[in-house]
Amino acid sequence: MEALTELSYALDTFYFLVSGALVMWMAAGFAMLEAGLVRAKNTAEILTKNVALFAIACIMYMLVGYNIMYPGDAVSSLWPGISFLLGADNSVEAVLAGGDDAPYYSGMADFFFQVVFVATAMSIVSGAVAERMKLWSFLIFAVFMTAFIYPLQGYWKWGGGFLDGLGFQDFAGSGVVHLCGAAAALAGVILLGARKGKYGPNGEVRAIPGANLPLATLGMFILWLGWFGFNGGSELKISDVGEANAVAMVFVNTNMAAAGGVVAALLTARMVFGKADLTMALNGALAGLVAITAEPLAPSALWATLVGVIGGFIVVFAIISLDKLRLDDPVGAISVHGVVGMWGLLAVPFSNEEATFGAQLTGLLVILGWTFAASFLVWLVIKVSVGIRVSEEEEYEGVDIGECGLEAYPEFTGSRGSGR
Amino acid sequence: MEALTELSYALDTFYFLVSGALVMWMAAGFAMLEAGLVRAKNTAEILTKNVALFAIACIMYMLVGYNIMYPGDAVSSLWPGISFLLGADNSVEAVLAGGDDAPYYSGMADFFFQVVFVATAMSIVSGAVAERMKLWSFLIFAVFMTAFIYPLQGYWKWGGGFLDGLGFQDFAGSGVVHLCGAAAALAGVILLGARKGKYGPNGEVRAIPGANLPLATLGMFILWLGWFGFNGGSELKISDVGEANAVAMVFVNTNMAAAGGVVAALLTARMVFGKADLTMALNGALAGLVAITAEPLAPSALWATLVGVIGGFIVVFAIISLDKLRLDDPVGAISVHGVVGMWGLLAVPFSNEEATFGAQLTGLLVILGWTFAASFLVWLVIKVSVGIRVSEEEEYEGVDIGECGLEAYPEFTGSRGSGR
Amino acid sequence: MEALTELSYALDTFYFLVSGALVMWMAAGFAMLEAGLVRAKNTAEILTKNVALFAIACIMYMLVGYNIMYPGDAVSSLWPGISFLLGADNSVEAVLAGGDDAPYYSGMADFFFQVVFVATAMSIVSGAVAERMKLWSFLIFAVFMTAFIYPLQGYWKWGGGFLDGLGFQDFAGSGVVHLCGAAAALAGVILLGARKGKYGPNGEVRAIPGANLPLATLGMFILWLGWFGFNGGSELKISDVGEANAVAMVFVNTNMAAAGGVVAALLTARMVFGKADLTMALNGALAGLVAITAEPLAPSALWATLVGVIGGFIVVFAIISLDKLRLDDPVGAISVHGVVGMWGLLAVPFSNEEATFGAQLTGLLVILGWTFAASFLVWLVIKVSVGIRVSEEEEYEGVDIGECGLEAYPEFTGSRGSGR
Repeated sequence: MEALTELSYALDTFYFLVSGALVMWMAAGFAMLEAGLVRAKNTAEILTKNVALFAIACIMYMLVGYNIMYPGDAVSSLWPGISFLLGADNSVEAVLAGGDDAPYYSGMADFFFQVVFVATAMSIVSGAVAERMKLWSFLIFAVFMTAFIYPLQGYWKWGGGFLDGLGFQDFAGSGVVHLCGAAAALAGVILLGARKGKYGPNGEVRAIPGANLPLATLGMFILWLGWFGFNGGSELKISDVGEANAVAMVFVNTNMAAAGGVVAALLTARMVFGKADLTMALNGALAGLVAITAEPLAPSALWATLVGVIGGFIVVFAIISLDKLRLDDPVGAISVHGVVGMWGLLAVPFSNEEATFGAQLTGLLVILGWTFAASFLVWLVIKVSVGIRVSEEEEYEGVDIGECGLEAYPEFTGSRGSGR
Repeated sequence: MEALTELSYALDTFYFLVSGALVMWMAAGFAMLEAGLVRAKNTAEILTKNVALFAIACIMYMLVGYNIMYPGDAVSSLWPGISFLLGADNSVEAVLAGGDDAPYYSGMADFFFQVVFVATAMSIVSGAVAERMKLWSFLIFAVFMTAFIYPLQGYWKWGGGFLDGLGFQDFAGSGVVHLCGAAAALAGVILLGARKGKYGPNGEVRAIPGANLPLATLGMFILWLGWFGFNGGSELKISDVGEANAVAMVFVNTNMAAAGGVVAALLTARMVFGKADLTMALNGALAGLVAITAEPLAPSALWATLVGVIGGFIVVFAIISLDKLRLDDPVGAISVHGVVGMWGLLAVPFSNEEATFGAQLTGLLVILGWTFAASFLVWLVIKVSVGIRVSEEEEYEGVDIGECGLEAYPEFTGSRGSGR
Repeated sequence: MEALTELSYALDTFYFLVSGALVMWMAAGFAMLEAGLVRAKNTAEILTKNVALFAIACIMYMLVGYNIMYPGDAVSSLWPGISFLLGADNSVEAVLAGGDDAPYYSGMADFFFQVVFVATAMSIVSGAVAERMKLWSFLIFAVFMTAFIYPLQGYWKWGGGFLDGLGFQDFAGSGVVHLCGAAAALAGVILLGARKGKYGPNGEVRAIPGANLPLATLGMFILWLGWFGFNGGSELKISDVGEANAVAMVFVNTNMAAAGGVVAALLTARMVFGKADLTMALNGALAGLVAITAEPLAPSALWATLVGVIGGFIVVFAIISLDKLRLDDPVGAISVHGVVGMWGLLAVPFSNEEATFGAQLTGLLVILGWTFAASFLVWLVIKVSVGIRVSEEEEYEGVDIGECGLEAYPEFTGSRGSGR
């Protein structure tokens, strides 16, 4: 019997590690998606941002963030205590002690699964502020976001804080991860301003096409794959019939929502623009995934598809609307993760009886309000101290040369520095 | 003991989900492979097709296909009944009841594993009809293929229909998936005709090089990786010594066949063309993988390598022969999945004593005949109603602008629309 | 109880297979990394090399290498016996016999996990000799490397040979895999000479930028992901609490070291070059990964980060120093895998009490000495027989046309053959 408990512990740990590896892989997905959707002259810089932000997220979350989000002893449901650095893992004795409090998987595996989530939230930001933000200013923001801003609101829900007490439901983070990332991005975009040439003097919106759509498509597929770890791992256990069925349901619903998002966005784009816009199909898939993330377990496969369909429909109009508001988001991150993240949170009560619209709305507003306000303040301090925007010449030349000292595609773009 | 049964159920379910995720990842592999092998001006469209067909496959297979392929109660071994939408998952009681009929893994995990297979079959089609087919006509075909054509022949073998009764062996689908996809592609290619400029007036065949070979190579590696899920998951169980050994053997043989295919295709290409043709090496790897798919368990590692070697040898000549027949398949999909798929089916009796050449040939002909005939009919109806081929101007300009309204690489191709 | 032993066997086997699949995926990572860091005109050839070397490694290791590295009966701790081809897998009886010698996972899974490691070592070589080596000469070297050179030193440590007896510690192969690959590469680079134009007559070093940095970044992310299998799988067991905790610790430390490497290399590059050099960030991540590979279990997460930080710091100066020595390594493979691999070996005693600097230094020198000497001899024989370097015209035109008969990006480079 003890051997069985140990084996069960091993299976759940392995399931966490595989899920975490899939979520880590999403970092590559965001990097490819964003690199594909910006212009060639700004590609190396956004790649550098994506690599560096992942590294910073890992280090800051280990040093500070994880201890805030999952404190040993919290001061209150609003304010966590700070525990020390990651401690020893569970002893065999503790595992075999039995009872509801006995750990059933490795604490290190838990940290691994959590640390890749904070990187996901941070990755959302990099796309929205692309093509005009200073690299090092962005990385300074990443330090604060991953050490403090994300973990505190994470504590409120997943760490057992007041949002959890209110009955707010957010299975894998439509709010805690995606809306949070989008709110931080929105604050940055407002303070940063639009790219030169994006909006004309008479209100016209100019399309600035991405340089490498296969890369963007690859990024979307990577994210779709990684999301099985993101949502599937968030069930947190797989080792009995009920849990195994639950994880399988989450996989199916995650997949169906993405599929629904693609079809809806493609048809909507066809109606609105008259063409099968690939970038909208990609955003549709991601919208479906974001939408189902708040509740991928309770819906039937059919309802999950519908949640994705609505997400895919919303995202097209969200992208159009943000441009009307002159909020310049080169990759559509605020629409995909923010606007659709809200839809995901509000869709929960339709399938999960434990959820209420009141609690969902409260959670939504708290996450949005806190993240936006705290991020705005940090961005502002960075702006007035070291600045957040590159010079006009550097923006025209491309940030790759100015920030990274190299070009992403030195042989492909005869028109280097042409300002395309 | 009950806890042990539950844990076993959990492991098998997890194994299915991981395998299914790897097969889902093959969708990205096909997308990258095909996008790398077409010209720049047709890249965004083929990416759109690949994203959309995956979504359509998921939705149609959930609504219709899965219920045809695995009916609760079949009318006959030729005609399935139609069960309802995916039902509830297995109860703990059913799992613990014991006996041969007791479910040992999640039904939802089974659906997830199956749904990504139908997408694979459909992905095969998109490459063969690339660079000249109307996007929406293709997607209409995808609806029928994934809802009906694929599931019916799948029922005949894997759903317990008459091909299974005949002793036809097809472990993971050299026939049911790969030959089926290739047969549907062949019907489309015949009705569609070759790309403008591919075949000269005096019978000469003009090479039309793919625009992005690193992308194609990435696609091949993704497919190689995904195939471990494709074949490895098709053992359907891993939770005891015999099954675990079997899955490991399948992994080894799958890998060795791919390796054999690479070496054989590279050497054959060197002999035939005098150069180490990268695209042939890629097709060789895929040929090895397709060849071993019908029986990756019974062979020794050495025999598996040889099955792949022969596949890699065949594929080079198949590609040359199809061009002689003026069947224009831009990515070689019919050769890789169809011709080599047949080799895979016919190779089974060499290692698996339960297989007979008669049954293998019957299965081959039934799958090929049914899929080709049904697909031909559907393509034909689409052709005479809405049309399947883009206009000559659109083909010359590239289908990206016409169908998707954007370019895949707007900054890289100075010679846009040059008809290269 | 027997069912429990079987289930445990199944879990450990599955863990091996998943780990092995992740390591196989590293082949794609090396291919993309190297393809992104060379010039467009040499891209198809390096892709061909990467695909072919993986295939060759699989076949030669099956036929010869595995039997050398893990012989049934060794002649001595310096010289293995040669066992026969991969035998039958473990019987249920053997598994259930119990005792320390009873196999607890599939032998085929073990082979699968080992075979992808040899491919990793070989992949390291291809980058260093890029852009000027003959394709077929490289592949001939691959045959000897994977059949004999790598397996013999692998036997000395992991097969139970004399290095293992000395107490040399190398958890997942900073020495056995990475230093070994780098030493073989170094011998090739010395015999091959630098690329034309890399070093000026007055000692100046000319940067030759890679053609596709998103691809290189993708390659780095693939390698980071694959490394969870590389290091995580090297714990060799996961099925009880202690082992599961160990695997989780390895995942965390692997991730933290990579993160540390990125930050250190980026800051170092900023100090040295004044810019956030993306390629240094990529090499920093890989350096962190290589550094932690010798001992990813014993360190705390904080110490693992520091091991990566030092690796990331070292790699920048190693790359600069090799250029000063006119050792032309287009992708920095010798620095990343060789120089940092040595750091990894020497870092072990700081966290693992069982290791001594003496044993680590001995292992380092033996691996370096053997691999360099044996490789030098093989390269030399190839050089004097069929030659290893392409002609000057071919180098100028690009090896793609000469060796593969095609171009990697036929539409993107207007300046084909410009010698950029």
